[in-house]
Amino acid sequence: MDFFSDNAAGVHPAVLAAIAEAAGASASAYDADPWSARLDAAFSALFETEVQVFPVPSGTAANALALACMVPPWGGILAHADAHVEVDEAGAVPFFTHGAALLLVPGEAGRLTVAGLADALARRRGDVHQVQPAALTLTNATECGTVYRPADVAALAGFAKARGLRVHMDGARFANAVARLGCTPAELSWRAGVDMLSFGCIKNGGGTSEAILCFDAALAATLPVRRKRAGMMPSKGRLAAAQLLALIADGLWLANAARANALADRLAAAAGPRLLWPVEANSLFLRLTPAEKAALRAQGFGFHDWELAGPEAARLVVRWDQDDAAIDALAAALARLG
Amino acid sequence: MDFFSDNAAGVHPAVLAAIAEAAGASASAYDADPWSARLDAAFSALFETEVQVFPVPSGTAANALALACMVPPWGGILAHADAHVEVDEAGAVPFFTHGAALLLVPGEAGRLTVAGLADALARRRGDVHQVQPAALTLTNATECGTVYRPADVAALAGFAKARGLRVHMDGARFANAVARLGCTPAELSWRAGVDMLSFGCIKNGGGTSEAILCFDAALAATLPVRRKRAGMMPSKGRLAAAQLLALIADGLWLANAARANALADRLAAAAGPRLLWPVEANSLFLRLTPAEKAALRAQGFGFHDWELAGPEAARLVVRWDQDDAAIDALAAALARLG
Amino acid sequence: MDFFSDNAAGVHPAVLAAIAEAAGASASAYDADPWSARLDAAFSALFETEVQVFPVPSGTAANALALACMVPPWGGILAHADAHVEVDEAGAVPFFTHGAALLLVPGEAGRLTVAGLADALARRRGDVHQVQPAALTLTNATECGTVYRPADVAALAGFAKARGLRVHMDGARFANAVARLGCTPAELSWRAGVDMLSFGCIKNGGGTSEAILCFDAALAATLPVRRKRAGMMPSKGRLAAAQLLALIADGLWLANAARANALADRLAAAAGPRLLWPVEANSLFLRLTPAEKAALRAQGFGFHDWELAGPEAARLVVRWDQDDAAIDALAAALARLG
Amino acid sequence: MDFFSDNAAGVHPAVLAAIAEAAGASASAYDADPWSARLDAAFSALFETEVQVFPVPSGTAANALALACMVPPWGGILAHADAHVEVDEAGAVPFFTHGAALLLVPGEAGRLTVAGLADALARRRGDVHQVQPAALTLTNATECGTVYRPADVAALAGFAKARGLRVHMDGARFANAVARLGCTPAELSWRAGVDMLSFGCIKNGGGTSEAILCFDAALAATLPVRRKRAGMMPSKGRLAAAQLLALIADGLWLANAARANALADRLAAAAGPRLLWPVEANSLFLRLTPAEKAALRAQGFGFHDWELAGPEAARLVVRWDQDDAAIDALAAALARLG
Repeated sequence: MDFFSDNAAGVHPAVLAAIAEAAGASASAYDADPWSARLDAAFSALFETEVQVFPVPSGTAANALALACMVPPWGGILAHADAHVEVDEAGAVPFFTHGAALLLVPGEAGRLTVAGLADALARRRGDVHQVQPAALTLTNATECGTVYRPADVAALAGFAKARGLRVHMDGARFANAVARLGCTPAELSWRAGVDMLSFGCIKNGGGTSEAILCFDAALAATLPVRRKRAGMMPSKGRLAAAQLLALIADGLWLANAARANALADRLAAAAGPRLLWPVEANSLFLRLTPAEKAALRAQGFGFHDWELAGPEAARLVVRWDQDDAAIDALAAALARLG
Repeated sequence: MDFFSDNAAGVHPAVLAAIAEAAGASASAYDADPWSARLDAAFSALFETEVQVFPVPSGTAANALALACMVPPWGGILAHADAHVEVDEAGAVPFFTHGAALLLVPGEAGRLTVAGLADALARRRGDVHQVQPAALTLTNATECGTVYRPADVAALAGFAKARGLRVHMDGARFANAVARLGCTPAELSWRAGVDMLSFGCIKNGGGTSEAILCFDAALAATLPVRRKRAGMMPSKGRLAAAQLLALIADGLWLANAARANALADRLAAAAGPRLLWPVEANSLFLRLTPAEKAALRAQGFGFHDWELAGPEAARLVVRWDQDDAAIDALAAALARLG
Repeated sequence: MDFFSDNAAGVHPAVLAAIAEAAGASASAYDADPWSARLDAAFSALFETEVQVFPVPSGTAANALALACMVPPWGGILAHADAHVEVDEAGAVPFFTHGAALLLVPGEAGRLTVAGLADALARRRGDVHQVQPAALTLTNATECGTVYRPADVAALAGFAKARGLRVHMDGARFANAVARLGCTPAELSWRAGVDMLSFGCIKNGGGTSEAILCFDAALAATLPVRRKRAGMMPSKGRLAAAQLLALIADGLWLANAARANALADRLAAAAGPRLLWPVEANSLFLRLTPAEKAALRAQGFGFHDWELAGPEAARLVVRWDQDDAAIDALAAALARLG
Repeated sequence: MDFFSDNAAGVHPAVLAAIAEAAGASASAYDADPWSARLDAAFSALFETEVQVFPVPSGTAANALALACMVPPWGGILAHADAHVEVDEAGAVPFFTHGAALLLVPGEAGRLTVAGLADALARRRGDVHQVQPAALTLTNATECGTVYRPADVAALAGFAKARGLRVHMDGARFANAVARLGCTPAELSWRAGVDMLSFGCIKNGGGTSEAILCFDAALAATLPVRRKRAGMMPSKGRLAAAQLLALIADGLWLANAARANALADRLAAAAGPRLLWPVEANSLFLRLTPAEKAALRAQGFGFHDWELAGPEAARLVVRWDQDDAAIDALAAALARLG
């Protein structure tokens, strides 16, 4: 009964079937196959605007490659202090950008605010001696399991754009945010000012591919060569494209996310005042003493400590394919803790 | 009837089945799953020595990441002038190494020689003003469809090691070389002095993963963090590992390569004096006039021009899953050209 | 009467004379001249240990090149949040290190504390997903015009070394710190655990060269090639070496620094409760309203705002060659402000 | 009597005097001083067009920083196979460009030809898998002591620009080329299609600074931040600017170069058939057996072997401040060799 990470989730059968269907020989290697050729149109339909789609093998790659299109090697990226790009991607951003700096900004419950951004910028100068911010990255759903609403995104993106910054969204759990908010993908992305989106698939039923979505063709101009040079232009690109197509067909991505969210809600109800932050996606952050953590683990529940919130914090993530029985068991165990 | 590239080959059914088998939920993300845990042992058995295995999503990534473990950012890599790392990887080597230079050396039929290496080094000095070579990379089978024998590799690697250089092999078609030579994988790699091998899978029946094999544990010390930082540590690592395991189980990798080689031999017999170089793997390089190229293409045969050998050169690659009928048809068409 | 920066100070006549003396033709370009040959011995005598010396054209270069010897491209550097490497060097650290991250730690009056470092590390994990700290950098005198005592440095360096980190000191105003503390250069550097020191010259009477001092020969192994590759190995190295030799001859560096410190003390006495932090080197940080700033500027006093400490902060730096009259005038003006 | 390199030459007294004159305190650090402010106008007058000037501490830095403004990290630079950027700059180009590749092209006597460039491009493709050339760099005077005439430069630059490439000139010995050809600096640079010029000073009587000249303001847009981030924006920028101004005042740069050229001509006459290439600047390349080299060295003549041209090649460089007596002695010694 593990709640370590949605990374451990299974591949959805429809995604598996798509891989099998695309697995035969093809006259066209790299991105010239029929599946790859359909990607832009499929995502454009889903997002109600022209989208360019670039499959990449991980969320880390999606974030870093997208940001590299927005920021020169000497530029800066405004990011939440707990953002995945800062905390869990081993320096991929400076690697792919050739040295751009993450300019960290604090914010409650994983969320940046306009006031927080303004404060950070007030401490900076615009001269050649300082790293100049060139982009803002938002994570939605956030690392704390909360979400930005479309209006929140629009306010932050508007602040950024007024200062000449481009806007990226780390959407490793974008599906969970959209499913929770009941908005359209468009409303939570480009309509709110997002230029590029790391569209998460692997945690949500995908297999070996995430996607970078680009809503501004000019920004994507260097992405093909950046992706190739990074060893991420797959010779059998059809295998990646087929997965992405299967996941967004017939609303599968939203159904998967909605189920994970709903299961997380059941746990949230059981966790009550232990919750560090409201549960708005598929992750829960709980205050648990070492003894309580040990007791849960002894009952077979797996989860991570969450050092960023101190020694008594724990993170539990619900997968799209989590057993109902595991949810019931954990809810009961949490209730027993009192 | 396309002979563009073995990149366009299908995924072998056994590899597909392995993906499906590994696709369920797992308690362990990243490399902590049971499939990933078996990789080192499986390849160690195949290579008759301790091997560390790192799945990566492309041959470009395999080559560049491996070389990055061998060469400082200011170092040089001796490579054949037509090597894939130079000609077809969009600068991945300087990207992953942070600037190391490919020091190009000519050689007949895609093969480096000790005399050629000695000549190149004689033109260089050992001082701080020059890029100092730190590694040698060999491609086997070569870009010209020829192979290095174990003794060739040993001679070149011995020359390199006597000068303090490490040795990498780009084995995108290592299977074809081993199958052709009838040697063991060990004889053609670490026993001949190879420190790291890019073990090709995707062209040979694999799906989404190649593998870096490291025969010297010290050299691999930085590879985990390099791979993670490059966005190539897959959260569902089990999907990659399962493919690699399936491909090397029961000699599948060699059977696939042997079939492609044998089909290439049938074409070679038909091509006769048009061959630019002996056919020792699964690729043919032919001298064809523009009219002859056009004639073949008009009959439905797809293949690439080969600019490196001049305007009248063409490359035809045979896949492991090529139709017998396509081979027969092409052999007949070549015979008709006279 | 400008108090903008000690960067604007003059070149000491002894340094000028040394340039002239070294300006003739020499049989030996690069570092092979007699002046360069004397550098190591001269600094070794001054620091009472074996020192390797590398002239570089700026403090930014000194800091970034030194740190690049200590930290892999994927490593982290613990630094004060207001450190010059973070605030005023335009991303030189990620450039020279190929992507290492500055891990910022807050601290009063520009000083890090062991508790602050421990706190920062407690929020981090040791796995492959996170940037791992590999070095600590201290600035002495600090960016706030305060100093670390030898015992402070030893405590911080000891903490770092117990965790496998190397220790760098940004000594752009090392002379001012030593002059203030009355200790030996050794006591404030390698005896306290510093591995490499950016030894500031230009602000303190030098001309075109700073120096990296390395107290651990192994750490300096890659510095010659890093310096050459960065375009910082001067063909007329004798001009740089001569300057450094002149500045440390006969205690000139300490005399210059002591004078600037003493002049700063006179201003500190006049500034009284406006001081944000104690004046322990040659810089003063004052609380001044916009009207007060304007009044001082109207009287001809030049100085910078100090955004890092909020809108009412100002920085005034005293140069080694500042006029006594300017000091008297500013002291009087500050007194008049009340 | 050393003929190792013009790097070993002295600093001209006028340059020294300029350093002394600029050495006093200044209200303005970095590039805000009066000397720096005059640079653009002075070079614009000399080159008869608008020029932006950026002092840097070495020719390596000048070349690499200039090229970094022209080429993306994944781009290529067409260069002569023996160019200084390839042979003697320790990988500075990939460092400053974040990975751009030097695409080497052979050419007689150090000179590229349009045919040679065309040949090199014919072997390349324009797709995403290959490094795409983005700039051409020419060295004038060349590494072989020959020169390109204005028409040569115009032909090569025209070829490059027709293919969308920018054009850089490594002018470490630009003065020698101009002095030899009797043309204007404009004719040999921007009028012939050069976009950026590394204007050599240090070998020709300068001290600690070279200059990047930019003839296209758009190209220089990123140079200030690149220079700062590379630690090459000197806080006492007036010391560098004063040197450059002194060197170009009253034709000093051309007088120095003309003298070196004339002395080289005297040696050339003595060397006769031993010359590998015509002497068109201030360097001679001679065919000398090991015994002949030893004999010359035994007589006190210092010079370098020239590995690039084989074991019997030697390079002798004449400095602007070379003794007449040394020239006479060497001419006599060469004559005695027969």
